[in-house]
Amino acid sequence: MSTRRVGLWLIGACGGVGTTATLGLAALQRGVIDSTSLVTALPLFHTVDLDEPAQFVVGGHEIRRAGFRQTVRELQKRSNIFEPAIADACQEDLERWEANLRPGTLLNCGPAIARLADRSDLANGETAREAIDRIQNDLRDFRDRNKLDQVVVVNVSSTEPPFETGDVHESLERLTPALERRQPPLPASSFYAWAALDLGLPYLNFTPSLGASVPALLQLAEQRRAVTGGKDGKTGETLMKSVLAPMFAMRNWQLLSWVGHNIFGNRDGQVLDDPTNKASKIRTKDQVVSSIVGYKPQTLVSIEYIDSLDDWKTAWNHIHYKGFLGTKMTLQFIWQGCDSILAGPLVIDLARLALLSQRRGEVGMLRHLACFFKNPMGVQEHDFFKQFAMLERYVEELATDEHR
Amino acid sequence: MSTRRVGLWLIGACGGVGTTATLGLAALQRGVIDSTSLVTALPLFHTVDLDEPAQFVVGGHEIRRAGFRQTVRELQKRSNIFEPAIADACQEDLERWEANLRPGTLLNCGPAIARLADRSDLANGETAREAIDRIQNDLRDFRDRNKLDQVVVVNVSSTEPPFETGDVHESLERLTPALERRQPPLPASSFYAWAALDLGLPYLNFTPSLGASVPALLQLAEQRRAVTGGKDGKTGETLMKSVLAPMFAMRNWQLLSWVGHNIFGNRDGQVLDDPTNKASKIRTKDQVVSSIVGYKPQTLVSIEYIDSLDDWKTAWNHIHYKGFLGTKMTLQFIWQGCDSILAGPLVIDLARLALLSQRRGEVGMLRHLACFFKNPMGVQEHDFFKQFAMLERYVEELATDEHR
Amino acid sequence: MSTRRVGLWLIGACGGVGTTATLGLAALQRGVIDSTSLVTALPLFHTVDLDEPAQFVVGGHEIRRAGFRQTVRELQKRSNIFEPAIADACQEDLERWEANLRPGTLLNCGPAIARLADRSDLANGETAREAIDRIQNDLRDFRDRNKLDQVVVVNVSSTEPPFETGDVHESLERLTPALERRQPPLPASSFYAWAALDLGLPYLNFTPSLGASVPALLQLAEQRRAVTGGKDGKTGETLMKSVLAPMFAMRNWQLLSWVGHNIFGNRDGQVLDDPTNKASKIRTKDQVVSSIVGYKPQTLVSIEYIDSLDDWKTAWNHIHYKGFLGTKMTLQFIWQGCDSILAGPLVIDLARLALLSQRRGEVGMLRHLACFFKNPMGVQEHDFFKQFAMLERYVEELATDEHR
Amino acid sequence: MSTRRVGLWLIGACGGVGTTATLGLAALQRGVIDSTSLVTALPLFHTVDLDEPAQFVVGGHEIRRAGFRQTVRELQKRSNIFEPAIADACQEDLERWEANLRPGTLLNCGPAIARLADRSDLANGETAREAIDRIQNDLRDFRDRNKLDQVVVVNVSSTEPPFETGDVHESLERLTPALERRQPPLPASSFYAWAALDLGLPYLNFTPSLGASVPALLQLAEQRRAVTGGKDGKTGETLMKSVLAPMFAMRNWQLLSWVGHNIFGNRDGQVLDDPTNKASKIRTKDQVVSSIVGYKPQTLVSIEYIDSLDDWKTAWNHIHYKGFLGTKMTLQFIWQGCDSILAGPLVIDLARLALLSQRRGEVGMLRHLACFFKNPMGVQEHDFFKQFAMLERYVEELATDEHR
Repeated sequence: MSTRRVGLWLIGACGGVGTTATLGLAALQRGVIDSTSLVTALPLFHTVDLDEPAQFVVGGHEIRRAGFRQTVRELQKRSNIFEPAIADACQEDLERWEANLRPGTLLNCGPAIARLADRSDLANGETAREAIDRIQNDLRDFRDRNKLDQVVVVNVSSTEPPFETGDVHESLERLTPALERRQPPLPASSFYAWAALDLGLPYLNFTPSLGASVPALLQLAEQRRAVTGGKDGKTGETLMKSVLAPMFAMRNWQLLSWVGHNIFGNRDGQVLDDPTNKASKIRTKDQVVSSIVGYKPQTLVSIEYIDSLDDWKTAWNHIHYKGFLGTKMTLQFIWQGCDSILAGPLVIDLARLALLSQRRGEVGMLRHLACFFKNPMGVQEHDFFKQFAMLERYVEELATDEHR
Repeated sequence: MSTRRVGLWLIGACGGVGTTATLGLAALQRGVIDSTSLVTALPLFHTVDLDEPAQFVVGGHEIRRAGFRQTVRELQKRSNIFEPAIADACQEDLERWEANLRPGTLLNCGPAIARLADRSDLANGETAREAIDRIQNDLRDFRDRNKLDQVVVVNVSSTEPPFETGDVHESLERLTPALERRQPPLPASSFYAWAALDLGLPYLNFTPSLGASVPALLQLAEQRRAVTGGKDGKTGETLMKSVLAPMFAMRNWQLLSWVGHNIFGNRDGQVLDDPTNKASKIRTKDQVVSSIVGYKPQTLVSIEYIDSLDDWKTAWNHIHYKGFLGTKMTLQFIWQGCDSILAGPLVIDLARLALLSQRRGEVGMLRHLACFFKNPMGVQEHDFFKQFAMLERYVEELATDEHR
Repeated sequence: MSTRRVGLWLIGACGGVGTTATLGLAALQRGVIDSTSLVTALPLFHTVDLDEPAQFVVGGHEIRRAGFRQTVRELQKRSNIFEPAIADACQEDLERWEANLRPGTLLNCGPAIARLADRSDLANGETAREAIDRIQNDLRDFRDRNKLDQVVVVNVSSTEPPFETGDVHESLERLTPALERRQPPLPASSFYAWAALDLGLPYLNFTPSLGASVPALLQLAEQRRAVTGGKDGKTGETLMKSVLAPMFAMRNWQLLSWVGHNIFGNRDGQVLDDPTNKASKIRTKDQVVSSIVGYKPQTLVSIEYIDSLDDWKTAWNHIHYKGFLGTKMTLQFIWQGCDSILAGPLVIDLARLALLSQRRGEVGMLRHLACFFKNPMGVQEHDFFKQFAMLERYVEELATDEHR
Repeated sequence: MSTRRVGLWLIGACGGVGTTATLGLAALQRGVIDSTSLVTALPLFHTVDLDEPAQFVVGGHEIRRAGFRQTVRELQKRSNIFEPAIADACQEDLERWEANLRPGTLLNCGPAIARLADRSDLANGETAREAIDRIQNDLRDFRDRNKLDQVVVVNVSSTEPPFETGDVHESLERLTPALERRQPPLPASSFYAWAALDLGLPYLNFTPSLGASVPALLQLAEQRRAVTGGKDGKTGETLMKSVLAPMFAMRNWQLLSWVGHNIFGNRDGQVLDDPTNKASKIRTKDQVVSSIVGYKPQTLVSIEYIDSLDDWKTAWNHIHYKGFLGTKMTLQFIWQGCDSILAGPLVIDLARLALLSQRRGEVGMLRHLACFFKNPMGVQEHDFFKQFAMLERYVEELATDEHR
C-alpha cells in the first residue's frame, strides 16, 4: 500500500451525507465495517491504485455549529441508523477531524440555507473575492498541517436555489472582475469551486447547485490543470429511473406517464421545502426518462418534507405504459432508502476516483463518473448501464496505459 | 419489400400467447395497430431484412377445440383486452388461419395439460415416432398449401412438468431408437422440436418445457442445419429481475433476500397450479438473481392461480439489501401486466429473427436471442442489458457482413 | 312494487359520474347488470319502500354538447369500462333521456369550468335571478312532461373554486335581494340548489362546491320543507381514510404523518388541475384523519392530472405511525379504482334515499347520509363505521315508525 | 392508586412478544416511555380500576436459556428496535424478573418447537399430570415469593402444530383420567392452561395453539371460577382484514379474491416455517374475510420465513373486487410492522383486563376481548369495529354496575 496521505474536504461537512462519508472512512480505517456499497471496492477496481480509507484525513466547511459527533447522534436518534458499536469505535477519529472544520460562507447561498447557519464565527459582509481567499487559506492550512499529498474538495451542502447564468459566466476573463462587485455574480457553491480549482485541487459537486458548471470555471480548471465532476449524486429514485427507462426503450413499450412522489424529513428536505431550492432538484430529476427514451411522456416529480421520515427517503413511482395492441399496463415501485447511507459511500468513491485522475494528470470534466450523477457534467447519456460501461472502459484504459 | 411468404407455426396455437401473436400479425397487416412493443420494430433493425407482418401466414397444433376467434372473445370478456374495433377488423384473417389448425399430441404431456384436451380428433395411443411423423406431415402440408418460402415453429403451449434427462439424451444415436419404445424418452414438447428440426425448420421454445434442449436434439439441429432458441419467454417479473439485479451488483449493495409473489388467473396459471408443472417454471425464474450478483441471497418465488385476475399477472417483489455501514434497506415493485399482451409480440420478434438466421445459413443455438428468454440456451449471462448488447452486436455484424 | 314515477335530475349530467349513474339505471331497468355496489341493495334496505330503478326517468343540465351516449363511448374507449353488451343494450334509454337535457348556467362557475362549455344554447349575461327562474322552468317541465310524482336534483358537475361566504349568506332575507346584483353573491352550484329547494325538491351535492351549504339556503329548505344532503361523495382515498383512521385510534397508535398522492386523468381531473378548484377538493379531503384521531398529524394530500390514467384514479397513501416503545412503523396502500364506477351507484343510492325522506316529510339536512360524503352536512363524525351506524339507525327507526 | 400487587406469568416468556411486554412494563414503571399503543390507556378506560404497570411483577416459563436481557439485545441488534436509553434504564428490572423464570415443558409441543429447547433443566419424560403439577408449583411459588394479590397467565410461546380434538375433549370427566396415559391427550399449551385454570387463575392464549379451547377446559374454568380468553393476537394483516372487509360489505362491493403474502424472520417465523405449525396459523388467518362478508371469495394466505427481515413482518395484500357495472378494481396494502412491538402492548392490555374480570367475579370466556384476537373464543363476529364496540359496551356496563 502506498504511503500517500490524502485529504477529503467537505463543503457542508456535518450534514447527513458528509457525516456518513466521514464516519464510514473512520469505520473502514478501524475495520469495524466492510466495504459494502463502495463502488470502488468492486473487483473491477482491484488493480487500480486508489487511496485506501486509512490514507484519508477529513476536514471541511460548515455554517452550523454541529460537529460530526452531534450529527451521528442525531442520525442515530432520529433515523435509527449507525449501530452504537460502530459509532462508538469512531468517536476519537470524529473528534480529531472536527478540529479541521472551518466556517463556511453564506454569501449568496439563499435564504433557506442561511436560516440554518448558527456558527458564531461566520464572516459578515465579505466580498466574493474575500470569501474565495479565505476558503483557499483554509484548504492550504488543512493540507499543510496534515502533511497531505493531495486534497479533494466535495460539495455535499444543501441545494441552493437555481442560479441564472449569463454572458458574464462565459469566460474567466469576464467573470473575474465581477467578483469584486457588491452583488456577487455566483452563488456560494461556486466560490468553493473557484477556490479549489484555482489551487489545482479536484472539485466534485454532489448537489444540483451551480458549483463549477459554468464555462468560466471550466476554463479555470483547464488553466490550473484541475479535474472536476458532478452534478447531483444519483442515489435513489433517479437511479431507478436510469435503470428502468432503458428496459422500456429496449422492449419498445411506449411510456405514457411516469409519476414520482418523494417524501423525506432530513435537513436537506427542509431546505428543499423552499420552492426555489426545490426547483433546482426537480429540474435535474425530471429530464432523465425522456432523455433515455427519446420522447417526452407526461412526467411528474414531487419532493415533500415529511418530518417523521427523517433521513428515510420514500419514493413511490407509478409508471404507465402502452404495450402491444394498445394495452395499457402499470409498473409501480416503492423505494425506502436512507439518504445519507446511500450517498455517503459515493462521496468516498468519487474522492478516490478524482484523486486518481488528478495524479494521472487528467484535466477538466471527469466524464467517466457519469454513473454517479443525476446530471453528469459533459455527458448526455442517462442510461445507468451505459454510464457504468463508461467507467469500465476508463478502468480498462488505465490498465492499458500502465502496460505501455 | 420482399415477396417472400413465411409461415408461423404455433404449438398451443390458441392459447393466450399464440392468439395474441396471431391477432397482432393480422392487425399489423391491416394497419389497425402500430408496432409498439415489437422489439424488431426498433430503429436498431431498420436496415435488417426481416419479414414484414404482411408476409406471414399462421397455423399450428392445438389440443383444445377453441379457435383463435373464441380465445379472442374470451380474452375480451375475461381480461378486458383487445378493443372491439381491432378484433373485429381481423375476424376474417383469424377464421382463415383457423383452417390451418391441426390436432396436437398428448403423448407424455403430463396430466395437467391432458386435462385441457377436448378436441375429438386427437390421436390415441400413437408412438413417439408416429407422433413425429404426423407433426411433420402437418408442417409440410402447411408449407405446401400456403406456398411458403419458410416456416418457423414456436412452442407457446402450457408448461410441462420437469423432465429428467439421462445418458440416452446425450446423443442422437442413442435417442433415436428409444423413440420406438412404449415409454417415450421425451415429453410432448420435444416431439414437436424433433419434427421441426428434422425438417430443417427453425424451432423456438417460448416455454420452460424441455423442447430442443438436450444434446441429442441440438445434434439433430446441427445435422439438418436448423436453428433453435429458447427457453421460456422473459416477459414480466423475471425481466425486472434481470434489469434490477445488475444495479445492485454495480452499486455493490448486498442482496439479503428477494421475494417474488406472482398471481394470475389464465389457462397457463391453471396448469401451473399443478405443483409439478409449477416446479419447471420456478426453476427458471429463481436462478436469475444469483447468477447476476455472483452469490446466493435468500430467494422465494411463488406462482399462484387467482381466478379473478385472468390474464393480468400481478407480481409483488420485496427486495431487501444491505447498504453502507450495515444499513438494511428495501425496494419493492408491483408489476401489473397482461401476460398475453407481453408475450405475443415477442413471439413475432423471435419468429422474424429466427427466419432471418435460417436464411443466412446460421446453425444451432441462437445465442443472440438471450434477452428474450428467462433461461437462454447456451448463454450464462442473465443481465438484460448485456443480453441486449449481444443482440445489438449481432445486428452490427449483419451490417458488416453485407458490406463485405 | 309501487307505481310511482320519479325523476333524477343531474347537474353536469353527461360527465363521467352522471353518465355512469344514468347508464346504471338503464342497465338495472333492463336487467343486464346486478345490483353490486348499490348500498341501497343491501339486505338492510330490503323492507324499505325505496323507488326501484325501473321507476326512474333521467334528465339534467349540461354545459357541454356531449350526450350520455358520447360519454359512454368516451369512457369505453379511454378508460376501458362498460362492456359493449351492457352499453349497447341501453342505447335507446340513453337516447330518450338525452332529450331531457337542458343548457346549464355558466354564471359564476369559474374559468376552469367555463372553458369546458361548448353548447351553442348557453345563456349569455343572465342575472342570478334569471338563471334560477330558467332552471326552475326546466325542472317543472321535466316533471310535467314525464308525469313524475317526485324529482330529486343531484349535483355531479365539476368542482368549483372555493367561494368565500360572509354575512350576506347568513339569512335568506339578506341573500334574496343580492340575487339581483350584477355581481352574483353565490357560485353556479348554489343557483341550482336554490332552484331545487325553492320548488320543494330534494337537493344533493355530490361535489365540494358550495351548493346548499350556507345558512340562507338551509333556511330556504326549511321554509319549502325540502331535504338536502352533501357534500362531496366519498368514493376512494377519503373513504379509506375514514376506514383506517379509526383503527389507529382504537389501537392507540400515534399517527406521525399521512401522505396521500392521487393521480387521475378524467375531465374532473382537468378541472382540478386548476389550483383554485383543487383547493376546494383538498380542503374536504384533508380534515378527515385529524377529526377522527383527535389531533393533527402531518398530512399531505396531492391531486394531479395524469392524462393517461383517464378515469382510473390511483392513490398511494403512506401512513407513518408510532407504536409501543417509540417504534415507528408504516402502512401503505394503493387504491386503483375507476372514479365514475365508484361514484355512479352512490348517486342512485342518494337519490333513492332522498326521495324517501321527502315522501316521509323530513325537512332540512339528511344527516343519516353522512357515510356517503367526505364532508357531511351537519355531521362532525368522519369514522365510516359510525357514519354507517347512523344509516342503520335511520332504517331501524323507519321500521319502528311504520309499526306505530 | 391501589396497593395491589399483580403478577404476569408468561408462557414462552423470553420470546420477542414476552420480552417486549416485559420491557414495556419496566419502561412504563420507570416512566421512560409513554403509553402509546396500549389500548387500555385510551380515554375509554380512564375511570376503570385497572392495575397500573407499577403494580406488575413478571415471571414465566421458558424452554430456552435466553433471558429477557439477551432477547432485548438480540432484538436491538437484529431488528433495530428498543433504543439503548430505554433498554439500559430497565436492565435491573429485567435481571430481577429473570430470577422468576422456570423451565417449561416440551411434552407434546411438536418437533419444531422442541428444536428450540436448550435449557439444561428441562424435565425429561414427565407425564401430563406431572407437568401440570410442576407448572402449578411454579405459579404458586411465584405468587407467594412476590406476595401477589393476583396472577394472570398468558401464552406467548411459538405456535404448535394443529391438534385434532375428539370426544375425549368434550368433558372434564373424560379428559382427566386421560392425563395419566403415556400418550398425552393434549398439546403442551393446554397443560399450562389446565394448570392456571385449575388454580383459578385467568389464562389468556395469545397464540393459535389449542390452550384452553376445548369444552373440558372451559368446564374446568367454570368449576374453578376462572376467566379465559383467546386465541391468537390480532396484530397485523388479520387486523387489517377485519378493518377493511366491513368496508367492502357496507359498500356492497363483491370481493373476488383476497391474497395475502406475509414474510418475516423471527423465531416465530422459524417455527411457522414448519408446514404443520404454519397450518395452525393460516387456519385462523383465513376465515376472517368470508365470515365478515358472508360469502367465500378466493383467498390465499402465505407465511414465509425470510431471515433478513427479523422481527419486521411485511405483508402484501392484493384485494380484487367487482364494483358497479361489473368493473373489477384493486386495493393493495403493504404492512411493515414489527411483530413484537405490535404484540407486546396487547399482552399488557389483556393481562390488565383479565385481572379486572377475575376480581369482578366473571367466569369463563371473556367475549368482550374479541377485538384483540384473530379467532376470538365464543365470538363469531370478526368485524374489528363491532368487536371494539363489544369492549366499549363492557366498559359502559362496568360504570353502570358501579353506580348501582
